Amino acid sequence: MGRRGKGFNRERELARILWKKGFAVLRAPASGAKTKKLVYPDLIALKKGTILVFEVKTREKPGIIYIDRKQFMKFMEFIRRSGGQGYVAVKIMDGRGWRFIPIDKVEETRGGNYRISLENIERGLRISDLVKIADRTRSLTEFL
Amino acid sequence: MGRRGKGFNRERELARILWKKGFAVLRAPASGAKTKKLVYPDLIALKKGTILVFEVKTREKPGIIYIDRKQFMKFMEFIRRSGGQGYVAVKIMDGRGWRFIPIDKVEETRGGNYRISLENIERGLRISDLVKIADRTRSLTEFL
Repeated sequence: MGRRGKGFNRERELARILWKKGFAVLRAPASGAKTKKLVYPDLIALKKGTILVFEVKTREKPGIIYIDRKQFMKFMEFIRRSGGQGYVAVKIMDGRGWRFIPIDKVEETRGGNYRISLENIERGLRISDLVKIADRTRSLTEFL
Repeated sequence: MGRRGKGFNRERELARILWKKGFAVLRAPASGAKTKKLVYPDLIALKKGTILVFEVKTREKPGIIYIDRKQFMKFMEFIRRSGGQGYVAVKIMDGRGWRFIPIDKVEETRGGNYRISLENIERGLRISDLVKIADRTRSLTEFL
């Protein structure tokens, strides 16, 4: 299974976890020729009017995560239109759970692309934090 | 092209229209074996924090629209979780544009399934109404 296939499995995994936590979840359609004109994030999760928008990244081991400029710009455009909160959802395949890095923590590189530092990945939110944000018992600003 | 194929084309059409109107739009992934456990509407559209959830129906000519109980219950569950507004998006292929019927206008049949009357289809909202609702210049209750 190629990298894209693994990515899809992770997206499905995250979708199931968030559904179990009470979110309404929608994954993006598989990227096909006819959907190219539209901008899709990997996943969105909705709860009680809160909109969470995700780009999903999977890594075998911890490391800085780089995001292509074009991809990140599309992601930001979707977030801007929706009025929701954007997160890069990172799964490191070493037994750790998911980490959710708010887009405010994504840094621009000198070359005009984007990256997330190891420190910001470690400090990322947990699933339980997202639930608290959606249930309005905590706000995103408390984590920033 | 079968009925399902036509349905997908209409979903794509509606996705493009709403994107042009400033919405962030996500279509459901193609129904595959591995997504069966999750509940998906056909389309969601987000704008400035407003969540619109759609089930898409296409008909060759005007007529009452019937919706299977199980399908409608799943749709309602997604809407309930999301905290959004639910609409059945109807495209009659006789040159008319789209009509959006709020779920409050969907009636239960004696057999426990659901239906939308011709009258309620004709009275359905237009694309421009959805834009006003999302822009908060009108509220859904004004249409009910």
